[in-house]
Amino acid sequence: MESEFVSRLLSQLPGDLRLEVPPGDDAAVLRPPAGRRTVVTVDLLTEGVDFLLAADDFRRFPPPATPREVGHKAVAVNLSDLAAMAATPEAIVVAVALPRRGGRRIADELSAAVAATADAFGVSLAGGDTNAWDGPLVISVTAIGSVAPGRAWRRDTAQPGDRIVVTGPVGGSLLGRHLAVAPRCREAVAIAGRFSVHAAIDISDGLGLDLARLTAASGVGGLIDLPAVPVHPDAERLAAVQPAAGRTPLEHALGDGEDFELLLTLSPAEAARLVATPPEELVAGSSMRPAIIGAITAEPGLTARTAAGQLLPLAVEGFDHVFD
Amino acid sequence: MESEFVSRLLSQLPGDLRLEVPPGDDAAVLRPPAGRRTVVTVDLLTEGVDFLLAADDFRRFPPPATPREVGHKAVAVNLSDLAAMAATPEAIVVAVALPRRGGRRIADELSAAVAATADAFGVSLAGGDTNAWDGPLVISVTAIGSVAPGRAWRRDTAQPGDRIVVTGPVGGSLLGRHLAVAPRCREAVAIAGRFSVHAAIDISDGLGLDLARLTAASGVGGLIDLPAVPVHPDAERLAAVQPAAGRTPLEHALGDGEDFELLLTLSPAEAARLVATPPEELVAGSSMRPAIIGAITAEPGLTARTAAGQLLPLAVEGFDHVFD
Repeated sequence: MESEFVSRLLSQLPGDLRLEVPPGDDAAVLRPPAGRRTVVTVDLLTEGVDFLLAADDFRRFPPPATPREVGHKAVAVNLSDLAAMAATPEAIVVAVALPRRGGRRIADELSAAVAATADAFGVSLAGGDTNAWDGPLVISVTAIGSVAPGRAWRRDTAQPGDRIVVTGPVGGSLLGRHLAVAPRCREAVAIAGRFSVHAAIDISDGLGLDLARLTAASGVGGLIDLPAVPVHPDAERLAAVQPAAGRTPLEHALGDGEDFELLLTLSPAEAARLVATPPEELVAGSSMRPAIIGAITAEPGLTARTAAGQLLPLAVEGFDHVFD
Repeated sequence: MESEFVSRLLSQLPGDLRLEVPPGDDAAVLRPPAGRRTVVTVDLLTEGVDFLLAADDFRRFPPPATPREVGHKAVAVNLSDLAAMAATPEAIVVAVALPRRGGRRIADELSAAVAATADAFGVSLAGGDTNAWDGPLVISVTAIGSVAPGRAWRRDTAQPGDRIVVTGPVGGSLLGRHLAVAPRCREAVAIAGRFSVHAAIDISDGLGLDLARLTAASGVGGLIDLPAVPVHPDAERLAAVQPAAGRTPLEHALGDGEDFELLLTLSPAEAARLVATPPEELVAGSSMRPAIIGAITAEPGLTARTAAGQLLPLAVEGFDHVFD
């Protein structure tokens, strides 16, 4: 591991008692909570695909991101993956490839944001690797969490008859929430402690696509009640400012990615109990607004039910990486 | 986490009982060994800096690397960091940014090599993230290991009077060992079980530079006995084929990086016992050849002692990332 980015990160934070050996050595040594499983995930973000640092045209949409926003997002999307497992976040390690020109300023802002977000979620900064190159900014974050044995939420355990719950309104994230990612970590841990959740996934690539992944992994299907899908005001705004795109607010809600709400499946009784529980009772100050949006079916595939009761195959759209 | 690269990785390996939830979910769930600390490190490699995939000139030196070599190296350098902590490797997660053109072939070869190296060192593949972009290949590997509480080797605990041991000959790695990295994982764990090691670091950026890091972290200095430094035959070859570079084999041994031997400091008695122990007795088939090359001094700074007994300041050279 290279030391410079790590040193910057550490300078932002007080000493961390959960680290037996702090970053700056060849590796960090963590004191894991006793009797728990280790949960691990990685996400790598690249300039030009996951974010833009500078726009060649000030009218460009979406607008470019600051290094601070990129640093926050890189940590937050990983914490969202831990939330989707009902895991408690414990530590992160961060690797960056910095553009040689301007890399110092980017490193300063990025490290400040990484440290702030880690601190906000009570996560140890366990190390990093700094690289400089002639390419664009790349940041890879690995997040480590913990969960009791056998208690991690999975995406392959949804059961026919389950209700599908989304933890908040979706769509239009490009208006800002795609950067100001608010992972549902505390909510997930609180829900896991009080409700029996059969399956879970976070909405990173679109409600439709991520639900398709969950149902495919579980060998089941899903029926979405379209009027029940909570459409975020940003989805309305985005449809209004981009009429040429020809997408309705509901289509944005189903197809836009980067909402980072959770999709959960629970028995009908548990789902009803969850949406009836005030979010404040689960997590103080939570913006979570869980809603039942459909049900798991034994038959594979996704179906949408319109307000008129019409059943249509749900066209799955969303973001996926393509290469050849 | 994206699924495609993970699926390729998994298809290379049988099921892994150490994983309670295998990759393919939002995160993987590991069963960590009870009562041990978690050791974590990350290294990110970029095309053009850490390796070249294609050469514009067939006479170019060093020659380009294959995706297989890159995949092996990305895992092996992280395992070397775990070795430098005397940690037992447990799991890796891998994130890649693949060039959109030719990415599929690269992904295939890379994943085969990652899986093979993980298998060779008994490491679980705990997940990954696949991205495609218009940039060059980037691969980030996070390695997770375990060690008994308080037993991790550190770089900041060398003591004046310690002997400095290197686990094998160094220099000239660019002739091939920079890709065919052989991390000293088994040797480190075996040494830690039978010898009292005060401090350790792996030689990634050059014997001189990495010793400077160890001594600076420990608040001490070092005296290197130049005739005792084991010069790798590759250092002799490299000096011979690049006479214009004007570097002697010894200079290659001190300054070239990517040897991935370990530098250890031990009491004089323990160091003598270590070099007198047949490596085969520690690890069957090991190519390790430990040698005492100097001593830790109370005064900071590195000094070199020539065959004639002359004392010179050791010029520290090696590879470090530069950006502004």
